[in-house]
Amino acid sequence: MRKAMANSIVGDDVYKEDQTTINLENRCAKLFGKEAGLFVVSGTMGNLLAVMAHCQRGDEIIVGKHNHIHRWEQGNYAQIGGISATTLNCNDDGTMNLAEIEEAIRVKAGYSDKDYKIQEEDSDIVHIPDCHMPATRLICIENTHNFTGGKALPVEWMSSVQKLAQKHNLKVHMDGARIYNAAIASKTLRLGAPIGSIIVGPLEFIDKARHIRKAIGGGWRQSGVLAAAAHVALDNAEVTITRDNQRAVKLAKMINDVTPSDKRSRIFAQDKDITNMVLVHCDNVQKFTAFFQERDVLVMAFDTKRIRMVLNWGVNDEHLEKIVKVYQEYVEQM
Amino acid sequence: MRKAMANSIVGDDVYKEDQTTINLENRCAKLFGKEAGLFVVSGTMGNLLAVMAHCQRGDEIIVGKHNHIHRWEQGNYAQIGGISATTLNCNDDGTMNLAEIEEAIRVKAGYSDKDYKIQEEDSDIVHIPDCHMPATRLICIENTHNFTGGKALPVEWMSSVQKLAQKHNLKVHMDGARIYNAAIASKTLRLGAPIGSIIVGPLEFIDKARHIRKAIGGGWRQSGVLAAAAHVALDNAEVTITRDNQRAVKLAKMINDVTPSDKRSRIFAQDKDITNMVLVHCDNVQKFTAFFQERDVLVMAFDTKRIRMVLNWGVNDEHLEKIVKVYQEYVEQM
Amino acid sequence: MRKAMANSIVGDDVYKEDQTTINLENRCAKLFGKEAGLFVVSGTMGNLLAVMAHCQRGDEIIVGKHNHIHRWEQGNYAQIGGISATTLNCNDDGTMNLAEIEEAIRVKAGYSDKDYKIQEEDSDIVHIPDCHMPATRLICIENTHNFTGGKALPVEWMSSVQKLAQKHNLKVHMDGARIYNAAIASKTLRLGAPIGSIIVGPLEFIDKARHIRKAIGGGWRQSGVLAAAAHVALDNAEVTITRDNQRAVKLAKMINDVTPSDKRSRIFAQDKDITNMVLVHCDNVQKFTAFFQERDVLVMAFDTKRIRMVLNWGVNDEHLEKIVKVYQEYVEQM
Amino acid sequence: MRKAMANSIVGDDVYKEDQTTINLENRCAKLFGKEAGLFVVSGTMGNLLAVMAHCQRGDEIIVGKHNHIHRWEQGNYAQIGGISATTLNCNDDGTMNLAEIEEAIRVKAGYSDKDYKIQEEDSDIVHIPDCHMPATRLICIENTHNFTGGKALPVEWMSSVQKLAQKHNLKVHMDGARIYNAAIASKTLRLGAPIGSIIVGPLEFIDKARHIRKAIGGGWRQSGVLAAAAHVALDNAEVTITRDNQRAVKLAKMINDVTPSDKRSRIFAQDKDITNMVLVHCDNVQKFTAFFQERDVLVMAFDTKRIRMVLNWGVNDEHLEKIVKVYQEYVEQM
Repeated sequence: MRKAMANSIVGDDVYKEDQTTINLENRCAKLFGKEAGLFVVSGTMGNLLAVMAHCQRGDEIIVGKHNHIHRWEQGNYAQIGGISATTLNCNDDGTMNLAEIEEAIRVKAGYSDKDYKIQEEDSDIVHIPDCHMPATRLICIENTHNFTGGKALPVEWMSSVQKLAQKHNLKVHMDGARIYNAAIASKTLRLGAPIGSIIVGPLEFIDKARHIRKAIGGGWRQSGVLAAAAHVALDNAEVTITRDNQRAVKLAKMINDVTPSDKRSRIFAQDKDITNMVLVHCDNVQKFTAFFQERDVLVMAFDTKRIRMVLNWGVNDEHLEKIVKVYQEYVEQM
Repeated sequence: MRKAMANSIVGDDVYKEDQTTINLENRCAKLFGKEAGLFVVSGTMGNLLAVMAHCQRGDEIIVGKHNHIHRWEQGNYAQIGGISATTLNCNDDGTMNLAEIEEAIRVKAGYSDKDYKIQEEDSDIVHIPDCHMPATRLICIENTHNFTGGKALPVEWMSSVQKLAQKHNLKVHMDGARIYNAAIASKTLRLGAPIGSIIVGPLEFIDKARHIRKAIGGGWRQSGVLAAAAHVALDNAEVTITRDNQRAVKLAKMINDVTPSDKRSRIFAQDKDITNMVLVHCDNVQKFTAFFQERDVLVMAFDTKRIRMVLNWGVNDEHLEKIVKVYQEYVEQM
Repeated sequence: MRKAMANSIVGDDVYKEDQTTINLENRCAKLFGKEAGLFVVSGTMGNLLAVMAHCQRGDEIIVGKHNHIHRWEQGNYAQIGGISATTLNCNDDGTMNLAEIEEAIRVKAGYSDKDYKIQEEDSDIVHIPDCHMPATRLICIENTHNFTGGKALPVEWMSSVQKLAQKHNLKVHMDGARIYNAAIASKTLRLGAPIGSIIVGPLEFIDKARHIRKAIGGGWRQSGVLAAAAHVALDNAEVTITRDNQRAVKLAKMINDVTPSDKRSRIFAQDKDITNMVLVHCDNVQKFTAFFQERDVLVMAFDTKRIRMVLNWGVNDEHLEKIVKVYQEYVEQM
Repeated sequence: MRKAMANSIVGDDVYKEDQTTINLENRCAKLFGKEAGLFVVSGTMGNLLAVMAHCQRGDEIIVGKHNHIHRWEQGNYAQIGGISATTLNCNDDGTMNLAEIEEAIRVKAGYSDKDYKIQEEDSDIVHIPDCHMPATRLICIENTHNFTGGKALPVEWMSSVQKLAQKHNLKVHMDGARIYNAAIASKTLRLGAPIGSIIVGPLEFIDKARHIRKAIGGGWRQSGVLAAAAHVALDNAEVTITRDNQRAVKLAKMINDVTPSDKRSRIFAQDKDITNMVLVHCDNVQKFTAFFQERDVLVMAFDTKRIRMVLNWGVNDEHLEKIVKVYQEYVEQM
């Protein structure tokens, strides 16, 4: 990857003259069956631009309460975008209840579209056109969901969300953290490269996102050096992601194997329906992370009950052994 | 009231020289045991200013999904204020679950307060100081809640919310639509006068709100003509509100009395735990409202299953009879 | 006026049911040859709504550096609207140089209009379509300009600004502080009534402004009590404004008459080209205002060199005599 | 540079674990005598973060009408930051008149500092505490100014601006496009590396900027690959920048040498007081750029009268010869 970066052909991406970046954007767009792509600095920037390109200030999104976009991005859709959100509960598999989504949808009230005067025909929701309300524009889903420890979203559910969105003339934004699990509707793709994220979608959407990217200072010049790395990441994606997913299952099982059965109610790793993350449930998250950090293994609290370990290209089998060794010490002194 | 308005002594309120307004602000502040008050154009403006005075752009509030502040005010806390929200489910009595509130509270991350470096001592929530998150600043409650058909919030619950807020160093904003039901923590008071709403709270909070009010063009000049009306409304509040509440119960019972028992599963009025609103549950909200409107009675859909009728100073016993007469016609032809 | 207010017929203006307000809006629209009007809380709110209805977030306005809209309204077009401004110097008569206005106009870059792809044909400005720039949307003028001590803007200049705007597909917003001096393009009208201001313009513009008014909490209910006062103000406008303008000239002359000739280089009143304001130039503004305030005459510093005295319905001939008496004392002890 | 990138040691910069980035930030901070630095995606992002870290929403900056920050960054200080600006005329050397700057400074009105209650003692400006105004917080200068064709700002003027700012308790932000010309107060440094810009200043300022950077999605992960390139750019800065500046003078003289004397009133290059840009004044900018582009030399219109050619690491002596050859063809056919 470093070699590809060193040899990359670059230009000025603000003027759309960086061919390596253009190729990457087109490659990803094609991969997801979309018209266009945009290479941006981070997943957070990709999400922000996507939400702001879909919505005007004053519009509203529907998003899971534990989605990354709401939970881990400083509420920037509101802070920077002036867009409000109805936040819904997330189920254990990363889905939201369809009925709750539908209930949250407002009349499409925005004066700009004048659609607030149009009676809904094929809907059993009563739309009351009203200046009291924002217009719902977007449903945000996440795949795989950061909250589930890496479960892929059920394909049927995604399809239902898409239908619901079409029925109400809404858009769907997928925060697509894992490429090979992401389905047709996916719009964001976080690559295993050092820096950068891709959003894909219709050309007009990407044009808007590109314009807003400039406003927040995200327009970069010779981005080809980073795009080159992303190309390599994509080239290797199937192999490396398969390997990471297998390692995650392996690590979870290793952890459970060394856990004495009398302690399994207090500490265990989730080892089913996972992709490349391992969630360790334990009763003292703070002690756990401190114990590991003292032994030079950086693990992070996921919430008050769980530790998250993420497998990626930087983690190999030796690391797994070290982790399990430290874990065993921890469990023994519990 | 009109006479009081006609005789009101006025000045320039932007320069704090309108004595009738100053008196009203002080009167309301005293009524709720607060330092200061601010007379504003509308309940919506009162809520917006309160949220913006409590929070900086980039902060977060916790609010019920069906609270007026989220549901009926264009998401202006995000649109105008740049403030995000975690929206929670509302129970039938207008409360939110305390556990869900506590789960939604973030680390108090704002750099401006530097409190993100402080370890929480008396909290069992793991606060992870983190630039990924907004700081939770405010819990918004509503009393009586527009969604409940006018039930007063349980005093114990409000007290628990207040304690929870103190524990996490948060503020509480009460959108207080009905004065005599509002408890100690109440900060907003909507009066039965033609125009205007009052927010009350600490002096510094009110100073901020006043400053922001000017920015949105809410600074008014001879507001005394309206404050005079509010004084009259307050003078008469106990009498008129008691009367409205009694009329609401009376109307609900009248409606149920004329409903044939075989239709009561499809249409009925809620007649318990109500203040000044009557919610009529019925199976075809659109037909119901159209039927009434054709007979010159304006009633509004509350949601897809319920009609809301609000009793106030403008509704008298004769109106009640007319409403029941039309209702009876409607039920007969159902 | 108070009587009219007391007898006013009112409704709920948010639902467009307040007939007195509707009549006022239509009356003012007709007066300026516009499609529609909107009655709002203050001149500041009128200006904010007008700018936000003309511009999207990210657009740019051109405005005089000393215009009220930039100088005295908290920069709310940027703070609330997210709209930037190129501020230009104001000439002594309240105009800006046409060449400077034209130089400040950007490419009409907004992606939403796609006009950034269109080559300008009838323009000698080089438009460089570019994501680096906001789109200029609006030229803001003020009539009479608060900075000039009340001179009416030259009609030919206003006409040239209008042509320039048409050439570049821009809008013009006039902050119209004085009705009988305001020309065809005028869009804002501040009335001599206790509270309220009117904006007028095309129906779509007014619809947008109404929608935004709700977002900032400016939607009011029984606004008819205030609209009634505005009707009276309009009824009497010609008489009262003529009288105020005459009194202003009279006051200025009285002041100059009592100023000893040897002090006229240090203190004098502008007595030409004025409408209803008197600007007193003096060398110690702070002492002047303090001296008057101690004698119960409230005058305000206009800038570091001038005092502003505004004549309106509340100032009569007796007041003039009192002012001149205090002024004479002041001059004598200088 | 590519080699350094390929061999760079990286970590996660969001968690401050990318040592190459940390070293770069510290190196630049030290270079300018500041406490801390922040490596960001672009000069535009650096400027945006600096302005937003110095100012709250609702504050005001003073900036040259032709400064990059106002002219070429989509007005993002207002669009994203909610900050207004008084824009002043720029002199030919990139300075603004000190008297105009001082006149534009408002009362420090922000309620957050409570300084609006404090009488200014050592100032001859009359500060009128007033809710009508934003608080001026920041003076923005640019060095070398993009508008001057690369003249360094006079050191004495910068020093006067600094004194003026201190007198009024304001901050100064320097958009520092050229390192070796930038003086003590400089806060932004654009490097000749493929991607990235540095802002430097007090630690608290940098902490705020870092927090806001995350909100706009500018937090990057393994930024070390880019920081490594910036290190190389800095290592070589003195040599390469001196060479670029010399080449600029050489190019300007070559252009003037081949221009027939009878055409020099219509076309010529500025060859004095320049750093690394050459401004060619000519009477038909559009023809000029088209002519060059057809011959594979990309030059850009600077304004309606001038072409800008920027010398940097990518332009060598052979390029100069090609440019002059095309220029000669152009002049001949004029």
